[in-house]
Amino acid sequence: MSVRLPTASATVTIDLGERSYPIHIGAGLIAEPHAFDAVPASALAVVVSNTTVAPLYAEALMRTLRARHRRVELIVLPDGEAHKDWATLNLIFDGLLRLGADRKTVLYALGGGVVGDMTGFAAAAFMRGVPFVQVPTTLLAQVDSSVGGKTGINHPLGKNMIGAFHQPVAVVADLDVLATLPPRELRAGLAEVIKYGPIADADFLAWTETQVDALLARDPAAVTHAVRRSCEIKAQVVGRDERESGLRAILNFGHTFGHAVEAGLGYGEWLHGEAVGCGMVMAAALSAKLGLLAQADAERIARLIQRAGLPVRGPAFGAPRWLELMRLDKKAEDGEIRFVLLDRLGHALVRAAPDTAVRAVIDAHCA
Amino acid sequence: MSVRLPTASATVTIDLGERSYPIHIGAGLIAEPHAFDAVPASALAVVVSNTTVAPLYAEALMRTLRARHRRVELIVLPDGEAHKDWATLNLIFDGLLRLGADRKTVLYALGGGVVGDMTGFAAAAFMRGVPFVQVPTTLLAQVDSSVGGKTGINHPLGKNMIGAFHQPVAVVADLDVLATLPPRELRAGLAEVIKYGPIADADFLAWTETQVDALLARDPAAVTHAVRRSCEIKAQVVGRDERESGLRAILNFGHTFGHAVEAGLGYGEWLHGEAVGCGMVMAAALSAKLGLLAQADAERIARLIQRAGLPVRGPAFGAPRWLELMRLDKKAEDGEIRFVLLDRLGHALVRAAPDTAVRAVIDAHCA
Repeated sequence: MSVRLPTASATVTIDLGERSYPIHIGAGLIAEPHAFDAVPASALAVVVSNTTVAPLYAEALMRTLRARHRRVELIVLPDGEAHKDWATLNLIFDGLLRLGADRKTVLYALGGGVVGDMTGFAAAAFMRGVPFVQVPTTLLAQVDSSVGGKTGINHPLGKNMIGAFHQPVAVVADLDVLATLPPRELRAGLAEVIKYGPIADADFLAWTETQVDALLARDPAAVTHAVRRSCEIKAQVVGRDERESGLRAILNFGHTFGHAVEAGLGYGEWLHGEAVGCGMVMAAALSAKLGLLAQADAERIARLIQRAGLPVRGPAFGAPRWLELMRLDKKAEDGEIRFVLLDRLGHALVRAAPDTAVRAVIDAHCA
Repeated sequence: MSVRLPTASATVTIDLGERSYPIHIGAGLIAEPHAFDAVPASALAVVVSNTTVAPLYAEALMRTLRARHRRVELIVLPDGEAHKDWATLNLIFDGLLRLGADRKTVLYALGGGVVGDMTGFAAAAFMRGVPFVQVPTTLLAQVDSSVGGKTGINHPLGKNMIGAFHQPVAVVADLDVLATLPPRELRAGLAEVIKYGPIADADFLAWTETQVDALLARDPAAVTHAVRRSCEIKAQVVGRDERESGLRAILNFGHTFGHAVEAGLGYGEWLHGEAVGCGMVMAAALSAKLGLLAQADAERIARLIQRAGLPVRGPAFGAPRWLELMRLDKKAEDGEIRFVLLDRLGHALVRAAPDTAVRAVIDAHCA
């Protein structure tokens, strides 16, 4: 299939047996009908987007999709993490029923992580499951959230608490759309790019260090490599542990601290990537504090995150509130918080940590 | 495992590979710890029930479960189909987070179809999936809804529109609890028992005809056989088509008409089993109208449903409204309603029908 795509495109495959699917990465793919060849040609397609992205790209995508679907409709959601909730999810269900959607209808998520997570969960639950396609328009969604089938919404007490594992039938990452991404969102996306090196690939970490300025300047060659390598690493991990019974949890490096920031400040106050950036600094520091990682390596990660323009200090919740927020993390078991830690650059593990060490890291890294 | 249960108990297995599970059927099983041997022994168990059933049976079940779980908690929902919605589902999520539930927490659905469907969907979606056990307390739930992994909630525009396939780890059907079932609910449950004969087993249909009075009188031997044979037939169908890509749809005999009654009158006005009873009369009549089934056989089904004390005439929505309501059925494709029809007693098929024939059936069967 990839041979039919523009020559500069790359395809990474998520290998999950019958549920395998391609991630196509390249410039201009939203306008490229062959990028959607893996999608069933249903009568009705529904594009779900938000008030920011829809005016920019919905029409172009819908024009392309009319080659596959007799009818292509659009549902527009409010923008932002604060809307990743029941009420907004219901807007999708209401729209689908109003449009006469059935079990064959294909949903297309056109937007960032929030649109992708919510559309994916809507696809998982509507009539107990319909196919969906991820068309990520943020760097964060292209390198992380659109890949791997995690879908869901937030609960006031915790991030992504309600959701499903529901794999898309294809991911189409059009690099051209990153041109309109606000700088703050670009930096937030870089956090998830940076994540892959420390947990899985020390060479990629070194590459990221040399390319961080090029990435911030949206250099096409650098961005293409970053998206592709990130998707390759994620594909390997997800292919080995789709439902996070073990290995997959390492993809949550920085997320235990990060989710606490998001829940504690209220969703949307910090961008997810900003919270993860700061969270990785803290998780690396905790790894060093526990003697798993050299202090110099933890500092190297912190420096890279700072150079990417991401926060390296957390909110001053105070340690008790931090711990309370982190106990609601989905990795927690029987009240014990489990952290993704590094035992060397390029390798992560999941384990509990003594409260005293966690408190010391919080005290040292939060204003 | 079944050898450890009281001698009068029966076990039917749902064969789904790694997701296989037992259905234990017998008197007194709520108080029998071995009935729950298939359940993981997590630290926390949460029983979800409703305001009607919890006062009767929650304490007995929780006492039994304390042998398997360090902590056993209870969430009580309002009773009735009208509450099978987002707001009530959220009461479960709120409760789970308040109780400190995690990915290992086991949910127990103690109640009828509404409690089972909602608890199952909550288990499917909470932290993207936790294990759950069905402890059905109505005849309808014991013979149908607790078995097979269909979970979900209603949308104002359609029954069970939002949900998941999520198999329980065990079903424990205690026949003693049927003693407190109101007569109207018993009759509603009989509708689903009656369903299995026409679609899959003409001998069971004949048995049901001889035993309908014994079943209405709650004769233990008759009820035991009815529950067991119903579960066996459902297990066979679900084992061959878990996600309803084909065969499984026959279990919806009477449900296309029935769901229209429920949605058109408002959920809870008729019991689900009442709507299905009337729906089976109409579906059998449509089968005869289309020349698939002998008129005498359609009348035989109608007579049995009437003897069970179930409605055999539908609400006077008028044919246009009936058709509009049925187009929202999940079996519909591209606006075409698909009916479960009989081509002989003991065998069903799924197909579309001309509007004229459907209208004639509606006109003949609705006051």
